Amino acid sequence: MTNYEKYKAHLRKITDINLAAGVLHWDQEVNMPPKGADFRAQQLATLSEISHNFSVDVEYGKLLEKLDGDSNLSEDEIRNVEISLKAFRKSQKYTAEFVKNHSITVSEAFQAWDKAKKENNFSIFQPMLEKLVELKREECKLLGYSEHPYDALLDQYEPDTKSSDIEKVFQDIKEKLVPFVKELMAQKQNEDAFMYQRFEQQKQWDFGIDLLKQMGYDFESGRQDLSSHPFSIHFSAQDVRITTRIDVNNLNEMIWSCIHEGGHALYEQGMLKENYGLPLGKAISLGIHESQSRLWENNVGRGLPYWKANFRLLQSYFPEELKAVNAELFYKAMNVVKPSLIRTNADELTYHLHVMIRFEIEKALIEASIEVKDLPSIWNAKYKEYLNIDVPSDSKGVLQDIHWSHGSFGYFPTYSLGSFYAIQFYNQAKEEITDLEQEIEQGNMQPLLAWLRKNVHRYGKKYSAQNLCKKITGEKLNFEHFLSYAKEKYKPLYNL
Amino acid sequence: MTNYEKYKAHLRKITDINLAAGVLHWDQEVNMPPKGADFRAQQLATLSEISHNFSVDVEYGKLLEKLDGDSNLSEDEIRNVEISLKAFRKSQKYTAEFVKNHSITVSEAFQAWDKAKKENNFSIFQPMLEKLVELKREECKLLGYSEHPYDALLDQYEPDTKSSDIEKVFQDIKEKLVPFVKELMAQKQNEDAFMYQRFEQQKQWDFGIDLLKQMGYDFESGRQDLSSHPFSIHFSAQDVRITTRIDVNNLNEMIWSCIHEGGHALYEQGMLKENYGLPLGKAISLGIHESQSRLWENNVGRGLPYWKANFRLLQSYFPEELKAVNAELFYKAMNVVKPSLIRTNADELTYHLHVMIRFEIEKALIEASIEVKDLPSIWNAKYKEYLNIDVPSDSKGVLQDIHWSHGSFGYFPTYSLGSFYAIQFYNQAKEEITDLEQEIEQGNMQPLLAWLRKNVHRYGKKYSAQNLCKKITGEKLNFEHFLSYAKEKYKPLYNL
Repeated sequence: MTNYEKYKAHLRKITDINLAAGVLHWDQEVNMPPKGADFRAQQLATLSEISHNFSVDVEYGKLLEKLDGDSNLSEDEIRNVEISLKAFRKSQKYTAEFVKNHSITVSEAFQAWDKAKKENNFSIFQPMLEKLVELKREECKLLGYSEHPYDALLDQYEPDTKSSDIEKVFQDIKEKLVPFVKELMAQKQNEDAFMYQRFEQQKQWDFGIDLLKQMGYDFESGRQDLSSHPFSIHFSAQDVRITTRIDVNNLNEMIWSCIHEGGHALYEQGMLKENYGLPLGKAISLGIHESQSRLWENNVGRGLPYWKANFRLLQSYFPEELKAVNAELFYKAMNVVKPSLIRTNADELTYHLHVMIRFEIEKALIEASIEVKDLPSIWNAKYKEYLNIDVPSDSKGVLQDIHWSHGSFGYFPTYSLGSFYAIQFYNQAKEEITDLEQEIEQGNMQPLLAWLRKNVHRYGKKYSAQNLCKKITGEKLNFEHFLSYAKEKYKPLYNL
Repeated sequence: MTNYEKYKAHLRKITDINLAAGVLHWDQEVNMPPKGADFRAQQLATLSEISHNFSVDVEYGKLLEKLDGDSNLSEDEIRNVEISLKAFRKSQKYTAEFVKNHSITVSEAFQAWDKAKKENNFSIFQPMLEKLVELKREECKLLGYSEHPYDALLDQYEPDTKSSDIEKVFQDIKEKLVPFVKELMAQKQNEDAFMYQRFEQQKQWDFGIDLLKQMGYDFESGRQDLSSHPFSIHFSAQDVRITTRIDVNNLNEMIWSCIHEGGHALYEQGMLKENYGLPLGKAISLGIHESQSRLWENNVGRGLPYWKANFRLLQSYFPEELKAVNAELFYKAMNVVKPSLIRTNADELTYHLHVMIRFEIEKALIEASIEVKDLPSIWNAKYKEYLNIDVPSDSKGVLQDIHWSHGSFGYFPTYSLGSFYAIQFYNQAKEEITDLEQEIEQGNMQPLLAWLRKNVHRYGKKYSAQNLCKKITGEKLNFEHFLSYAKEKYKPLYNL
């Protein structure tokens, strides 16, 4: 065995454990009976501890140091080693005790959050969230940072991005997007009441499956289930699962979660089998992951060509409910811009204000300038300030998102970055694919999927997010693309 | 930490890994998309390897040796250590390579068996089965044995039982049970055609859930799903899952698998939380495990009192199909003794001939007196000889059982032992519980479950199978109890 082969075998083992833990996580959210929670948390903690021990193994570290600069390695191999070495150096900063505490707390916090949300009672979640925030502050110290402690968390999801970068983007949003949204709000709203009729659960489910198949999601390498918060997860590129949530009184929930999670899943299904466990077999960053879901959700799914392809099928499931609707009216309805309570249901413009609120809260929690117990009132005040919305209950407010219960702080900003990468990629795809939107209008998503496979999916972490963006589009992330897209799309929709 | 605490922590870690692997196994059979199989096999192999490494860890061995004879230990602690030390000494005989090969082969064999059975093509399974048999022969050599290599395999499922013991039981069956079955076969058969009408899947499912709830199966600590071969599995006493199989043209499949797997699950749900991972938190043997399923299935479920309690409910699900039936006719129908093809559907008397065939084949495979490629013809010949049955296809013959694809050789004989323990326990319960069968007739299973919890479940491995039997019933396993039960029950059913 060469050193590189030893490295690969070791990484494969770590990946096997992590993805096995993934199966336990998926099961926990989809299938596990309630009393199973305690021992499940313990089992996950044990897997996490074992994986951590392999990740920080001194011999593995020595192997990586030896491979660093090994002149026999190919370009791809060098890149794998480079990323693994960075991760190793980072992982050495964690103590086994921290990893175990974190894992146990996260499992318990999920149960508490789930109960708190169901019972609309923040106090059920509060002590667990306090524990988690403490752990996150400790994590920032363990990892270190140069500007702001929050940077240490951000780097886990969006490498090489800092709080100050995010702040700049949100500054742009405040200065350029918010005034545009105000302009829109002064106009007459488009009709979307027909989205909120009663739509039978099974028919919604079936339509969602149709959309996923059309996108090219491979059901022999995945499955869809129901869960309280839709998510995608992979146990290999050959087993990439998604979940959805169906509201029988609101067609939006199912449609957007299917397309969104389907976009994530296509990214994972597009990883190369031979790169299993290696950095080149893993997503670049959450921002790029989100670009794949947002591209399908917003740039494709909320576009007129997509509904020219699919509205009739939808209508055939719900002929009575949608008899007075056509593709154009449907397109207008799904692009209503309106400040709202729930992030995951927000339109693609005000969405970024939801993200901004979470970013501001997280940053303040991490720097300890606010306290967990005050979150409901802080949350509600910010929704009033930025979105002019009164939050009627914590279930629809501070408890709406699953992320904190997972210990995912530093995650939310990547959602906005994802949308901005998405439009930049989509514009480029339109330039490179002949008649892309006519193909979409025919229900043919294959050219777009092939383009994404070729330009994004197959590379894994071969390029950094910014370098991939530059390679594909000729420039780094540029918010102006999103702004132009927003204006071009929404001005006609709002008769501006 | 005392040595005993260290021992407990180590065992808990091993159990966490093994039960995590259990979740992956369950998922594989209930949910996994087909292309996920390859990496799943690899992930299971990795978990198995890690668990094995912990189990054979030299430091752990030293700890056990230190604890062996430690005068500070309680009686229960001494018993835990004794069993763990035996297991440790055994586990030292396995090489890491064998464990890994075994795990990979088993995962692949399951896929091959599943396909072979679906396509009725033994040759798809044959090469994997050959690999497995080779591995099993190797395993017997690794473990060692005094009389017959098969004893080494048997000991894994039914400690302290030898092939020669099993042969004695089957000798009894041949001499005493087979003539009795022949007597029955000379009489007029009871009517059971109404069991083979069309029974809607969802209603069958719902009735099965009702039966499980009545037995006392806790759905907050478990769930039921569909799979091709019903099984039960636990990830803690608080997460014990079962699966069933529904044949819309045969009511038997669902009813008996629900009650049978429910019986297994009640045993696991009855283990004490504080014994998680310890021998005293684990089933004594497969024979005792099977006694719990068979007691519910045969002694309770195939009894008249049970259907006096439940037939009306069943009839309310299927009023048309069962309008001409009553509890007595139903009782007669489900106790038709008739040689048949499929073990899991066999009546409680001829069942043991099915087990005998598998035992003879396994023993011959292990001693290499027959070859895998000849299995279909050997199988069919034995079914002709013992049951006077022509096997129409390998799917209904040699491919019918999942066990070999799991690498489970030495397992089948425990099914017969289970039935014999079951009736011995049940007779005792009838003596100790006031009006037991009147309670059952009222649908009250609580007294029986409480008796089993008290006398069997809570002990785990505290006593050996034979010692537990003696403790409860005053004597060791005695086949005569089964024979008396059979005669007492079936003579009136067949007008003898």
